[in-house]
Amino acid sequence: MKRWSYPVVVLNFKAYREAVGSGAERLAYVAETVSKELGVTVAVAVQPTDVHRLSSRFELPILGQHVDPHEEGSWTGHVTAVALREAGAEGSLLNHSERRIGLSEIAIAVELLRKEGLRSIVCADTPLTSKAAGALRPDLVAVEPPELIGTGISVSKARPEVVTEAVRMVSSVDPGVPVLCGAGISTPEDVYRAIELGTVGVLISSAFVKSKDPQHTLTGFCQAALKSHESRSSRL
Amino acid sequence: MKRWSYPVVVLNFKAYREAVGSGAERLAYVAETVSKELGVTVAVAVQPTDVHRLSSRFELPILGQHVDPHEEGSWTGHVTAVALREAGAEGSLLNHSERRIGLSEIAIAVELLRKEGLRSIVCADTPLTSKAAGALRPDLVAVEPPELIGTGISVSKARPEVVTEAVRMVSSVDPGVPVLCGAGISTPEDVYRAIELGTVGVLISSAFVKSKDPQHTLTGFCQAALKSHESRSSRL
Amino acid sequence: MKRWSYPVVVLNFKAYREAVGSGAERLAYVAETVSKELGVTVAVAVQPTDVHRLSSRFELPILGQHVDPHEEGSWTGHVTAVALREAGAEGSLLNHSERRIGLSEIAIAVELLRKEGLRSIVCADTPLTSKAAGALRPDLVAVEPPELIGTGISVSKARPEVVTEAVRMVSSVDPGVPVLCGAGISTPEDVYRAIELGTVGVLISSAFVKSKDPQHTLTGFCQAALKSHESRSSRL
Amino acid sequence: MKRWSYPVVVLNFKAYREAVGSGAERLAYVAETVSKELGVTVAVAVQPTDVHRLSSRFELPILGQHVDPHEEGSWTGHVTAVALREAGAEGSLLNHSERRIGLSEIAIAVELLRKEGLRSIVCADTPLTSKAAGALRPDLVAVEPPELIGTGISVSKARPEVVTEAVRMVSSVDPGVPVLCGAGISTPEDVYRAIELGTVGVLISSAFVKSKDPQHTLTGFCQAALKSHESRSSRL
Repeated sequence: MKRWSYPVVVLNFKAYREAVGSGAERLAYVAETVSKELGVTVAVAVQPTDVHRLSSRFELPILGQHVDPHEEGSWTGHVTAVALREAGAEGSLLNHSERRIGLSEIAIAVELLRKEGLRSIVCADTPLTSKAAGALRPDLVAVEPPELIGTGISVSKARPEVVTEAVRMVSSVDPGVPVLCGAGISTPEDVYRAIELGTVGVLISSAFVKSKDPQHTLTGFCQAALKSHESRSSRL
Repeated sequence: MKRWSYPVVVLNFKAYREAVGSGAERLAYVAETVSKELGVTVAVAVQPTDVHRLSSRFELPILGQHVDPHEEGSWTGHVTAVALREAGAEGSLLNHSERRIGLSEIAIAVELLRKEGLRSIVCADTPLTSKAAGALRPDLVAVEPPELIGTGISVSKARPEVVTEAVRMVSSVDPGVPVLCGAGISTPEDVYRAIELGTVGVLISSAFVKSKDPQHTLTGFCQAALKSHESRSSRL
Repeated sequence: MKRWSYPVVVLNFKAYREAVGSGAERLAYVAETVSKELGVTVAVAVQPTDVHRLSSRFELPILGQHVDPHEEGSWTGHVTAVALREAGAEGSLLNHSERRIGLSEIAIAVELLRKEGLRSIVCADTPLTSKAAGALRPDLVAVEPPELIGTGISVSKARPEVVTEAVRMVSSVDPGVPVLCGAGISTPEDVYRAIELGTVGVLISSAFVKSKDPQHTLTGFCQAALKSHESRSSRL
Repeated sequence: MKRWSYPVVVLNFKAYREAVGSGAERLAYVAETVSKELGVTVAVAVQPTDVHRLSSRFELPILGQHVDPHEEGSWTGHVTAVALREAGAEGSLLNHSERRIGLSEIAIAVELLRKEGLRSIVCADTPLTSKAAGALRPDLVAVEPPELIGTGISVSKARPEVVTEAVRMVSSVDPGVPVLCGAGISTPEDVYRAIELGTVGVLISSAFVKSKDPQHTLTGFCQAALKSHESRSSRL
C-alpha cells in the first residue's frame, strides 16, 4: 500500500449508470488526468465488476465500495478482500450509509484488508460513530451525515460542527487516523471548507459523476483541496 | 442471451482462494477447454471482480453469484445487473443459500436481469421454495438443500425425492422453467443421477475447484451429464 | 386455531406511539367492541411486547407482526412462533414490506407457525410475489404495494388491477389461500372495493390508529366490508 | 432507571423453550428469590413477548434482548425502545452475537433507550469491538467471544486476556462504562474469575436456563460474584 499524500479526493462512482463499465473507464481517465496535472491524490471507488478493468488500465488508486468480512471459502455472492487485491484494488470503502454492516463485520473487514495490504476507509454518519469507527483502527474514517448525501447541501457548509467534532472525536480515540468528509459536497468552496475544518480530504459522488464537464469540475475540487491544505499547513 | 443447450454444468467458484483472480483464469480455461471438447454447456459463476477479467478472455458463459435489486444510482457497495452486463456477464445466480435475499428482492432482480438481457438462476433450498422461486419467472431454478452443500454427499444420491419433487413443483407452477440440481455433487454418478431425476444440469463447486486435476474431474462430470441427458431424451 | 369468518379486518398497529402499551389496550378495546357489535372478524397485529398484555384482556385475535424462522434455542433477540403462541397470539404477519425476510425464511416461519397452531399471513408487494407467497402454503396472503402504504391512496382505488391480478395468481398456485388487501386503505369505499375485487378482507393501519374517532372509523370500515362481502356472496 | 449495585448477574433467556412464557415466569421467580436472598442484582433478558408478563409480576429488572433503531411509527415487526418501556422493561441488550446490528443502529438504539430512561447493554465480541461499543456511550458493554457461547468453556478461564483487554480498552475510551463478561460461563469459579479480571458482572444463559436445579445453580453464581466483588473492592 503506497502512502497517500494529502489532500485526498475520493470519487465514489456508486452504481450510477454513467459510472459503470465503459463509463467508469471514461471517468477514471478524467480522474487520472486531473490528478497527475495538479499532483493531488485522487482515488476512485468503483463497482467490484470494474476494479480489474480500471486497475489494469490506470495508475490512480482503485477502491472497492464494500468488503464482506470473510477471508475466503464458501461465500457465494460475497466480495472478499482477497478478491479485491487480486483485482488490483488498493483498498475499499466500508460501512457506507448505502451499505451498512455490523460493528464486528467492520472490525473483521478492516483486519482482512490490512492482511491483504489494502487500505480501509470506514464510513460513519455522526461524530460518535466516527469515534467508534476510529477505535477499530482503519486507515481512514469518512464522516458523512446520510441526510445530506446527494442533496447538494454540503456538510462542511451546513453543519461544520459535525466535521470538527468528528475530527476531534476520532483523534481522541486514535490520533493516527485521518478523517475524510463527505455528503453533499458540490462546489470547490465546500471542498475548501471541509479541509479547513480538519479533514485530509473529501468523498465526492454525484457532483463529479453527474457533472456535464467532469474534468473542469474535478479540477476545481482539486485546486480548492490543495489551496485549503496548504493554507492549513502554513498555519500549523 | 444465447440459448443454452442442455445439459448444463454450472461451476460455482464461490470465494475460494483457488478460484479468485489468476486462479479464476486458470479454472475458466479448464472449463472452456472441456466444454468445447465435449460440446457440453459449462458456465462459471465468479466473484464480481472476476467477471470482466474472464469475459474478456473466454467465450464460455460467465455468471455473477449475486445481484442486488437496484437498477442504478445511489447504491454504493451493491452489485447491479447493469454492472454485470457491462462487465460481460451472461447472467447470475440469485438467492444462493450463502447469500439469501428477500422474496421481493428476488422478483425485482430477476426482472432487472431480464431487462439487461441476462439469465437468472434462482437458488432454493426445498421443493416448496423452488416452487415459489419458479413462480417468479426466472430462467432457471437451482435446488440445493443447504445441509448438503460442501459435504460431498450429493442430494441426487442421498435425497433423490427432493430433486424429483422440486422438478415436479416448479413445473406445476411454470412448466417452462428448467431445474438445476446442486449440493454435494462430487462424482460423475451424482451428476448422472441428478439429470436422470429430471433436471437439465448441475451446480458444482468444491468438487471442481478443489480437485487436484480439475480437467479430469470436469471431463467426468460432463461425460456423465451428456450420457444421462441422452438416455433420458431417448426415453421421452 | 379458530376458523375466521369472512370478511376480515386486520388492524396493523405497527410501532405507532398511539398503538403501543396502554394505547394498544385502548385501540384493542375499540376493535373488540366494533367486532362484536357488527359480527365482523377484526384482528390486531401488535408489537411483540403487547401480545400477552392484549391476549389476556381481550377475546379478539391478536397477531404478531413478524416471526423469525427459528424453532427455539440460542436465538437472542429473535421472535419465535413458540413465544408468540405462549403469549396468546393467534398468528402473525410475515414479510411485511417494513420487515422483509428471505424466501426460505418465510417458508420456515409459515411451517413453524402451523406447528404451533398459529395462522400465517404472508405479505407481498406485487401479484407475482403474491403468487410466490401463495406457493408456500400460508393461511393468507396480503398484497400491499409498498409505494401506497401510508399514503391514503388505496390500492383498491388507484390500482385495482394489482388486487384482481394478485387474487388470480394466488388462486392459480393454490385456490385454498385467500387474499387480503392493504396499502392506503382509508375510507369505507376503499374497503368495499377491495373486497369487491375478490379479497376476503383488508389490512388497515394509519387510517385506524391515527383516527380521531377510531370507533366511528372502524365501524364504517366493518360495515363496508360486510356489505361488499354480502353483495359478492349473493352474486356467486 | 434505578442504579444497579454491583456485582450484576444478567440471565439471558434467549429463545430457549424452557425460558419462554410460563417457563420464563418460573425462571424469573427463581431469579428474584435468589437475588433478594443474597442481595445481588440479578436481571433477566427475555423475549419481547415476555417483558410485560414478567414486569407486571416481578420486581427484578427485566431486559429486552434487542431493540431496533427506530423511535416510533411505520415500523411493522420492529421492537422499539418505546414499546419496551411501555411493557415495563428496565433496559435491553443490544448487538448480541446472535442478533448483530450495524454501528449506526447501535448508536441510535443506545440513544433511544436513554431517551426512554432505559439501560443499554451493548454486546461485543472482541476487545477492539468492545472499545468501539464503549465509544457509543452505552450504560454497559458486555464482551462475549462468540466462539465460546454455549460451549461451557468460559472466556474467563480459557481466554482471560480477552476480558482484561476488553476492560482496559473500554476504560481507555470511556472510564465510566463498566464491562460485563459472557460466553461459556458455567461454574461459580468462572463467575469469580470474570469479576476478578475487572468486570462488574456476568452474562449467563444455558448454564442457568438448562440447569436441573436453577435455584441452586444461580445461588452458586451469585455467591461467587459477591465474593469476588468484595475481594476486589477490598484490594482497591
